Amino acid sequence: MSDTRPTKVKPLSGFPEYLPEQRIIEQHFLDVIRATFELHGFPSIETRSVEPVERLLGKGGDADKEIYGIHRLADEGGAGGRGEAELGLHFDLTVPFARYVVENAGRLNFPFRRHQIQKVWRGERPQEGRYREFTQCDIDVVDVGELAPHFEAEMPLVMAEVFAGLPIPEMVIQVNNRKIPEGFYRGLGIGADDVTEIQDTLRIVDKLDKVGSEKVAALLVDAGRTPEQARAVLDLAAIRTQDTTFVERVRDLGVEHPVLDEGLAALSAVIETGAAAAPGAMVADLRIARGLDYYTGTVYETQLVGYESWGSFCSGGRYDELASDGKNTYPGVGISIGLSRLLGLLLGKGLVGASRRSPSAVLVAVTDEGSRPASVAVATRLRSRGIPCEVAPAAAKFGKQIRFAERRGIPYVWFPGAGEADDQVKDIRSGEQIDADASSWQCPQEDLRPQVVRLGE
Amino acid sequence: MSDTRPTKVKPLSGFPEYLPEQRIIEQHFLDVIRATFELHGFPSIETRSVEPVERLLGKGGDADKEIYGIHRLADEGGAGGRGEAELGLHFDLTVPFARYVVENAGRLNFPFRRHQIQKVWRGERPQEGRYREFTQCDIDVVDVGELAPHFEAEMPLVMAEVFAGLPIPEMVIQVNNRKIPEGFYRGLGIGADDVTEIQDTLRIVDKLDKVGSEKVAALLVDAGRTPEQARAVLDLAAIRTQDTTFVERVRDLGVEHPVLDEGLAALSAVIETGAAAAPGAMVADLRIARGLDYYTGTVYETQLVGYESWGSFCSGGRYDELASDGKNTYPGVGISIGLSRLLGLLLGKGLVGASRRSPSAVLVAVTDEGSRPASVAVATRLRSRGIPCEVAPAAAKFGKQIRFAERRGIPYVWFPGAGEADDQVKDIRSGEQIDADASSWQCPQEDLRPQVVRLGE
Repeated sequence: MSDTRPTKVKPLSGFPEYLPEQRIIEQHFLDVIRATFELHGFPSIETRSVEPVERLLGKGGDADKEIYGIHRLADEGGAGGRGEAELGLHFDLTVPFARYVVENAGRLNFPFRRHQIQKVWRGERPQEGRYREFTQCDIDVVDVGELAPHFEAEMPLVMAEVFAGLPIPEMVIQVNNRKIPEGFYRGLGIGADDVTEIQDTLRIVDKLDKVGSEKVAALLVDAGRTPEQARAVLDLAAIRTQDTTFVERVRDLGVEHPVLDEGLAALSAVIETGAAAAPGAMVADLRIARGLDYYTGTVYETQLVGYESWGSFCSGGRYDELASDGKNTYPGVGISIGLSRLLGLLLGKGLVGASRRSPSAVLVAVTDEGSRPASVAVATRLRSRGIPCEVAPAAAKFGKQIRFAERRGIPYVWFPGAGEADDQVKDIRSGEQIDADASSWQCPQEDLRPQVVRLGE
Repeated sequence: MSDTRPTKVKPLSGFPEYLPEQRIIEQHFLDVIRATFELHGFPSIETRSVEPVERLLGKGGDADKEIYGIHRLADEGGAGGRGEAELGLHFDLTVPFARYVVENAGRLNFPFRRHQIQKVWRGERPQEGRYREFTQCDIDVVDVGELAPHFEAEMPLVMAEVFAGLPIPEMVIQVNNRKIPEGFYRGLGIGADDVTEIQDTLRIVDKLDKVGSEKVAALLVDAGRTPEQARAVLDLAAIRTQDTTFVERVRDLGVEHPVLDEGLAALSAVIETGAAAAPGAMVADLRIARGLDYYTGTVYETQLVGYESWGSFCSGGRYDELASDGKNTYPGVGISIGLSRLLGLLLGKGLVGASRRSPSAVLVAVTDEGSRPASVAVATRLRSRGIPCEVAPAAAKFGKQIRFAERRGIPYVWFPGAGEADDQVKDIRSGEQIDADASSWQCPQEDLRPQVVRLGE
C-alpha cells in the first residue's frame, strides 16, 4: 500500500491492540475458553456485528449503553441511505443471540446451548478497564416455554473449569437468586403498597461496594424504609457462605415469605451442585443483584481474588424471557467472561507472560544463499511432523542468525550440514548442540508451542 | 433480555450468519488456516476494527472501496463528536497492518512476519459471493528498507499447504511478476513517449476474462497501440506454464528489455521453488496483473478448479512501500484468503459438510431427576479425559433421550447403571451397546470432534 505522506500514527483511546507476544497470551486464553466450552457441549455461533438500531435501543438494562451507528461514507445523508434500516454495532452478545434464536427457531434444537466469542463495541468514554472495542465470551442455554433449573447450576461450573485452566489468580463466582431479596423484602413489608419499593431497595443495596453500609442505611431511610427494615436489608446483604448454611443465616433473621422460600431452595440447589463438583469455586453471596430489570432467578458475578475493586469479570443470570416471537417465549440462562477487561488487568500488572513471541520452535539457519533450498527442505521435513519453524531471512554469520532467534524467543537453531547426515541443532538457551536428523528429531513437547504462564507472585 | 413486542426478524443482506453445523465447518477452516500459518512461523496479530477515515480513504487501489463510518448515536451531530477524529471500519487488513507496523516499528523485530484473521466491512451492494461483512486471512512479511526476494516464493507455498489441508477441490495459484508485462511492453515501444501507456495497456489486458481477446485487441488499438503491438500483448497474456518453460515462450516472441529480463528471472525463481516443494500447486500465468497501482513485483491470484468464473479466492503480491514513516520505508509481500467468499461457494453448492452439529461426542442419559448428580459425575469423568459431552436435559424416556442425541449427530449415548460398574454406552449409529467405565472408556479418535468432509463429487 503506497503511503508516501509522512505518516502520523497514534493509538486510539479505548481500542486496545496487542504486540505479538501479548496476542499469544490472548490466543491461549481464547483457546482454553473455547476448548472448555466445547468439552461441555456448547457449539459456537457468531452473529453479524450489526443489528438494526431499533433493536439495540432500550435493551440491556442500562438505557445509556453507548451505541455506535454505522453509515456508508458514500451516502451524503449519513446513516442508512438507500432506504435501508439504520444499523449499529452490537454492544453485547445477548441482544444478537436473542434475535438469532427467534430468526432460526425452526432450525435449532431446543434446549439450545451455544457459545459465542466475539468483539462488541460501546462508545463510552474510555477509562481503566473500560474499552470501546472488547471481546466477550458467552455461554447460554435457551429453551422454548420452560427452562429446567439444573442449567442454572451448570453455567458457573463451566466457568469454574475455564478459570482452573487459565494461568490466573483465584476466581470466586458469587451466586445469588433474585427471589431471595425480593421475598425477604416482601416479608419485611417492603412493596406491600407500592411494588416499586422493591426495585428501589435493590438499587440502593447495589451501591454497597461503592458507598458502604452506613451510607446505604441512610439512603434506605431517605427512600422511606424504616430503620428496622434498613437494618434487616443490610443483614441479608452481609450473608456470604461457601455452603448452604446461608439458609440458616437467613432463617435466623426471622423473615418469612413464600418467594423467599423459593429463592432459598433454588440457590441451595446451585450451591450444593457447585460444592460437590468444584469445591471453593462458588459462594452464595446475598448482596449480588446484577442489573435490575431482566434477570428473574439465579444471578452470577465473579471476583478475581486480590483485585475485588476491579468489579466482576464474569457475570450473568437467568431470564424468563430472552426473546419472544409472539407465539413462543424463550427463557434462558447465561454467563459471560469480559476477556478484554481481564487481560487488561493481567497484562497491565504483569501477572501473565509468554515464553516467546513467535510460534516457531526452530529457526533453520542458512549457510549461504545458494544452499537456501537445503534449509527450506529441512523446514519442510520438520513441519511435516508438526514442528513449527521458519528459515533464516539471510545467510548472515551464524552469530547473527542465533541473535535473530534469541530476539523472538525461538528456542532452537538448526544448522544444515554439508551432507545429509551432518545436521546439528542447538538449544540456544542451554548452548547444547547435538547431531540431529530433520526426519526424526523430537522437539520437547513443552517447546512445541509458546508457553503462557502466571508471573509475579 | 425482555423483548415483549412481537419481534420481526429477518436476515440483513450482505451480512451472512451460519447455523451451528455451518459454523463447525467455518471453525475447521479457520483452525487449519491458523495452524498452517503458525507451522510456518507467522505469529498472529489483530488490529482494532476502526481506523481514522482519513487513513482509509484513497487506499487499497480502488478509489471506490465502500467505507462504513461509525458515529455515536448519543452525538446529535452524527459522526465524530466531542472533537474526535472521524472513524471508519477497515475494509481490508493491509491498511491497518501498515499503520500497525509504523506505530510499533520500535517494538517489532524485522523482517516481521505475521498472520491476521479478522472480519472486514465494505458497504457495497451485496451480490452472490460479495459480502458487507466478511473474514479475510492474511500473511505478510515486511522489512525495513529492503526485502529479500525469497519471501515472494514462500507466500504461495504456505497457501498451497493450507489448501492441501482443507476439504476442497483443487486450488491453483497463478503467479506473475509485474515487471514481465512492463518490460515486455517497453520492449515493444509502448510507453516510450508516454509512460501512462503501460498502465493503460495493463488495464485493458485485465479485461481478458470478461470480454475475450478479440475485444481486448480492438480496445488496445483504440487506445493507440498498433495492431502488431496488440497481437504481441495478447500473445504474452496467453502464456501459462507449470514450470519455467514460460521463459522460452516469452523469448520466442522476440521482444527484449532489461526490465523483462528481471521479471523473468524473478518469476523463474518463484516457480522453481514452487515446483520443487508443491508440484502442481502453482502456475506461471502471464495474464495476472492484480490491481494497477501498488504491486511492484510478484503478484498472485488463485482459482478453484471447476469454479474459475468465481474469480480469485486468494490474492496478493509484493509492494515496495507498504508504509513509510518519513524516515524508513517498509517493503513487503503478502497474500490473503477470502474465506467468506470461499465458504459461500462451498456451502451454497453443498461441497462440504460436518458430521454433527454439536461438539459433544457423548450424551449422558438421565434415568430420573434424582440421579442427575450421578449422570453429571459420569460427564465430569469423561471430560477429565478430553471427551466432549453433555448431560440430557430431562429424565425423559430413553427413546426420547436417544432422539435428542440423534438430532444433534452426537454419536454415543451413555446409560449410567444403578451401581458403579453397571454403566453402558451405545453407539446410536450402529446400535451396538457395550459395558463401559467412564474412567477408562476410549472414544474412537475420529468421533472425538466433528469431522468436516468434502461432499458431492
